Amino acid sequence: MDPDAVSKAFVEHYYSTFDTNRTGLAGLYHETSMLTFEGQKFQGAQNITNKIAGLPFQQCQHQITTVDCQPSGPAGGMLVFVSGNLQLAGEHHALKFSQMFHLMPTPQGSFYVLNDIFRLNYA
Amino acid sequence: MDPDAVSKAFVEHYYSTFDTNRTGLAGLYHETSMLTFEGQKFQGAQNITNKIAGLPFQQCQHQITTVDCQPSGPAGGMLVFVSGNLQLAGEHHALKFSQMFHLMPTPQGSFYVLNDIFRLNYA
Repeated sequence: MDPDAVSKAFVEHYYSTFDTNRTGLAGLYHETSMLTFEGQKFQGAQNITNKIAGLPFQQCQHQITTVDCQPSGPAGGMLVFVSGNLQLAGEHHALKFSQMFHLMPTPQGSFYVLNDIFRLNYA
Repeated sequence: MDPDAVSKAFVEHYYSTFDTNRTGLAGLYHETSMLTFEGQKFQGAQNITNKIAGLPFQQCQHQITTVDCQPSGPAGGMLVFVSGNLQLAGEHHALKFSQMFHLMPTPQGSFYVLNDIFRLNYA
């Protein structure tokens, strides 16, 4: 397993799902998963998906600038740190954001998101 | 242990040490620690401290905008996500940055930095 390839594939999958079918992200989170979105805390796949699906914009497009990853310890997890731009429909200027994910392996050989922290980077 | 209080104390300690005595950060890293600094990877306390101490500016000041934290799993670790401004001596404009730390507990009841990822947020 090449961690850089895994993290890049995860990031592409995550944001393309976010931009086309937000509720499709539910399968990436488990009951122990945590999201901190602009300082607001959510736990569990359902609460997290409700938050993401309920964000007050209909269409958006994420453009990724950087992806960094590191193994997070002996449990086989992986930290993925993303920076990029978020373009909302009807807005002239994109918003800059940073986001980190802590991916943990599943028994099926895939990964789920244990930790997710999102922040807009205001200019 | 209040995770928010621990992460806030860590962040204050980390950046005040960075801004006054960068080599003093060595004690926060272990041999397994990893730093990804603007995409460059370093491992081990000595290599990481060499990188930080060798950054091409003499004086700097970090101003913290946000600190978010989450527990990282059953091993007792903590993820700390920071955004802020980095003011370099002699520069008019501060640089915006985002940084994440994965803190792991030590047998002495303290924490060390297992993972550290730093990115400037270019406008």
